[in-house]
Amino acid sequence: MPAVTPIALVDDELAMVKYNDDGLVAAIVQDEATRVVLMMAWMNAETLRQSLDEGRTVFWSRSRQEVWRKGDTSGDRQFIRQAFYDCDGDTLLFVVEQEGRGACHTGAWSCFFRPFGGADGAS
Amino acid sequence: MPAVTPIALVDDELAMVKYNDDGLVAAIVQDEATRVVLMMAWMNAETLRQSLDEGRTVFWSRSRQEVWRKGDTSGDRQFIRQAFYDCDGDTLLFVVEQEGRGACHTGAWSCFFRPFGGADGAS
Repeated sequence: MPAVTPIALVDDELAMVKYNDDGLVAAIVQDEATRVVLMMAWMNAETLRQSLDEGRTVFWSRSRQEVWRKGDTSGDRQFIRQAFYDCDGDTLLFVVEQEGRGACHTGAWSCFFRPFGGADGAS
Repeated sequence: MPAVTPIALVDDELAMVKYNDDGLVAAIVQDEATRVVLMMAWMNAETLRQSLDEGRTVFWSRSRQEVWRKGDTSGDRQFIRQAFYDCDGDTLLFVVEQEGRGACHTGAWSCFFRPFGGADGAS
């Protein structure tokens, strides 16, 4: 199993995070090794604290309206190595060690596997 | 000036994009050279088409409620090299050549310059 490296909960930092009307903040996940952007999902204040404290991404599933501890079902966990909040405090970035087959429920490594512009991407 | 490489507008692809109740879709921007995640902002259907067609990121500013052609004021334009939509069609990823000083209105190269966990990041 990959190493777990929790990130300290600092109240002044957590207070900088702004949540939308649904109490959620966007969380981008990037693979540490390849720098590939893996996915984007949502966290609430509780699952952000859980993520930092457990060193694993924990999201709020908007479709299921429940806590979504990434990888508990699939085994494809994400171990957090760095976490950032942006200039406006309304988007988070997690740099992770992606376990298993990848981040996407389709089986793809990244959720961003479909380019615009036809199969070749740029026209 | 960096090369401009427009991306073909393909109706079947554009139809895969899902917009939220405000008619917006989240757009992540990543630097092609360094693979750094630069920022996240929002597009509507019109500014997505403009972005692909012009080969530059064009967003919808939620705070100003107007089209935000990135870099028109600052000079720090983003020239699109690849564009992707995710498995659910509700998040976009643009890989760009970032011009000028960077993506962030603070003057930082990336908007994600503040780590959780204190100054050192991981605890």
